[in-house]
Amino acid sequence: MAVAELKPSNTMTHLHSSSQLSLLSKRRLITHHVSISSRTLRKTLSARISCSIAPNEVRVPNVQTQEPKSKPECYGVFCLTYDLKAEQETRSWKKLINIAVSDHEIRPKEPKVLASGEVFGPDQPIALKLLGSERSFQALEGVAMELEDSLFPLLREVSIGVDPYEVFQDADWALLIGAKPRGPGMERADLLDINGQIYAAQGKALNAVASRNVKVVVVGNPCNTNALICLKNAPNIPAKNFHALTRLDENRAKCQLALKAGVFYDKVSNMTIWGNHSTTQVPDFLNARINSLPVKEVIKDHKWLENEFTEMVQKRGGVLIKKWGRSSAASTAVSIVDAIRSLVTPTPEGDWFSSGVYTNGNPYGIAEDIVFSMPCRSNGDGDYELVKDVIFDDYLRQRIAKTEAELLAEKRCVAHLTGEGIAFCDLPGGDTMLPGEM
Amino acid sequence: MAVAELKPSNTMTHLHSSSQLSLLSKRRLITHHVSISSRTLRKTLSARISCSIAPNEVRVPNVQTQEPKSKPECYGVFCLTYDLKAEQETRSWKKLINIAVSDHEIRPKEPKVLASGEVFGPDQPIALKLLGSERSFQALEGVAMELEDSLFPLLREVSIGVDPYEVFQDADWALLIGAKPRGPGMERADLLDINGQIYAAQGKALNAVASRNVKVVVVGNPCNTNALICLKNAPNIPAKNFHALTRLDENRAKCQLALKAGVFYDKVSNMTIWGNHSTTQVPDFLNARINSLPVKEVIKDHKWLENEFTEMVQKRGGVLIKKWGRSSAASTAVSIVDAIRSLVTPTPEGDWFSSGVYTNGNPYGIAEDIVFSMPCRSNGDGDYELVKDVIFDDYLRQRIAKTEAELLAEKRCVAHLTGEGIAFCDLPGGDTMLPGEM
Repeated sequence: MAVAELKPSNTMTHLHSSSQLSLLSKRRLITHHVSISSRTLRKTLSARISCSIAPNEVRVPNVQTQEPKSKPECYGVFCLTYDLKAEQETRSWKKLINIAVSDHEIRPKEPKVLASGEVFGPDQPIALKLLGSERSFQALEGVAMELEDSLFPLLREVSIGVDPYEVFQDADWALLIGAKPRGPGMERADLLDINGQIYAAQGKALNAVASRNVKVVVVGNPCNTNALICLKNAPNIPAKNFHALTRLDENRAKCQLALKAGVFYDKVSNMTIWGNHSTTQVPDFLNARINSLPVKEVIKDHKWLENEFTEMVQKRGGVLIKKWGRSSAASTAVSIVDAIRSLVTPTPEGDWFSSGVYTNGNPYGIAEDIVFSMPCRSNGDGDYELVKDVIFDDYLRQRIAKTEAELLAEKRCVAHLTGEGIAFCDLPGGDTMLPGEM
Repeated sequence: MAVAELKPSNTMTHLHSSSQLSLLSKRRLITHHVSISSRTLRKTLSARISCSIAPNEVRVPNVQTQEPKSKPECYGVFCLTYDLKAEQETRSWKKLINIAVSDHEIRPKEPKVLASGEVFGPDQPIALKLLGSERSFQALEGVAMELEDSLFPLLREVSIGVDPYEVFQDADWALLIGAKPRGPGMERADLLDINGQIYAAQGKALNAVASRNVKVVVVGNPCNTNALICLKNAPNIPAKNFHALTRLDENRAKCQLALKAGVFYDKVSNMTIWGNHSTTQVPDFLNARINSLPVKEVIKDHKWLENEFTEMVQKRGGVLIKKWGRSSAASTAVSIVDAIRSLVTPTPEGDWFSSGVYTNGNPYGIAEDIVFSMPCRSNGDGDYELVKDVIFDDYLRQRIAKTEAELLAEKRCVAHLTGEGIAFCDLPGGDTMLPGEM
């Protein structure tokens, strides 16, 4: 893979000497910021440099080789071990799969849907491993109790824990939802650093103890770059196995096109979200189809497509939070389920789905070595292929270039977390966090 | 049906004269309380009398005969009318069913599960009609937006409104979740009155505009008596069609028995919850089975069954709220789905489920004309039959008598809402609200 060598800029903060570094590595990592007062400079590059760890420490990700610790704590009725092959009614079931879920704020939504059989089918027994924090451990027990009381027949094991090296053990799927929300006055660079550290740690843990073919779905924002950090810290797991969730954007785009065209949403297909799960995302109306026809043939109002449509998709979360007083948790949960289902069931003939995946030999000319949402197809084995027969025009190319530039800037900003040198934050101007998701 | 004539007690508050009543009926109904200071009296009967409407006004429930108003407002993409018979892929589907959901605090959980096809099957298109209040209308729009963004293929119509006479129109199912939570210092009698008024109004609306065979599931607490009030105000709908949700209790009881016996929860069957969805409920370990054997043969610790088991089931919600900081919304949603699924799929041979249903010729000797949780079986057509082959012992009889007495007292306390005379509140002592559900 071709990684552009990033040279330290002359605006960089002075780095710690190596003796300081070894000391630091034994303590809690800290973050340094250097503010540059020049207003002109501020406009062209965000004058903040986040550096929580020295580059040489992570150039080769620190692959933990220690023996995995004891199993995470099983919960209540799920501590009963149970031979699925011994029982008449479960003998034909598939082998138990391990699904790890990490969440910053523990919610029972996603575990519940995964346990219900809706995603993996009625013959797929499931073990859920829930990762929380010391602070949220009681809530984690609450989720486990709710799962007990729900009597999901396919849910055969539930374990809870606060150590990713325990919880991720043998995980076949990892659903990484947890991310710190942006606090007041916090800039995107700070958020990238704070959440990036979480995802670096979880990547290392996955690398050490998860199944060698674990599929990872990153939901916590900024999810593309979090997924990149995670995969860079898990060099023994194929980079192709990491996904950043852009499915809610895809679903919203389909709904808005359906509304405009006056058709039901199941008539919209081939919807791609290109790029970053941010306001630079590109909902692709050039390749999307309505009743198998190109969108532009059905919706003649091309001005609407170029201007309002994209904005409506992006701002949906913000409108919702205003109406609703809370973020779009229900439709997010649905889109997580959709994303996983798309990987475990064959994609319908001629259609595709969007997922933020690692660019490594992509046919679209998009920069390599980032996590970029692109059109995918799956034969249902958990893997995917990129779709080849998509077309581009100048408008689409320009938009894609913009979201690509943002992702490359985000990548430079977290270089200290991916083992690729010294972080340099020159995020493009403007706030590109999706409203309702900060 | 045999309705005991209830005579006004001499502890009753003085009632309004008929001239005052007609004036009152034009205004908002008000509630009068008379407190009796005697502490001794307080112990034997709750010295509060709730009377929000005079008996002669409701003795024959006021059946609204007005023409139903315009349809409730359809939402966004769901306003597109769509001929399911015209499309190849939907032609084999069943006829659209209308599901009304009322909720005090609008949550997308239940609508989402109903829309997903999980309950009614993959060929059953669904129209959801959501009832909110003026105050919650924006949140209602938020729920509709979340449903739009979820792209459920079976969800063909969503409409939202604040008038039950609009929203309940042609409803095949009504899921009544809304109930005011108990405020500080509010006694059970007050709660019965406040929520009873909501359920009286909703019963009248169902009676006027819903499908003549609508199935009603009451979740809002106190759900048994709310269901009784609702059915009494809907005399043109079979009383048998009303259910009070005790399924979460059943699920919790199964889980606790499984835990004690060291088996997985799918090995526990024939679990009845008798009576009221309150702390007087009776989880029946005499008739329940583990691996097809009577529970008492599997769990030899009969002291545990008699003392701790029941308490653990009842207190589960309280323990959860303590761990979790919120009420058991996730497992409640699952249990609502379980309850509906039990009515639309045939009950497995030899098993049964619990539901709070109207007692009218029951084979157990339980008082008639109340809503009492009992063992039911269904052939999957939405209807049910009571199970005949259950056994009783003294312990079970005593417990059932206690919860029966409570329900009869609750009924007397809401007589003004069921058209059966003047309310007289002599609720048995002690707080029987289930913890975590106030």
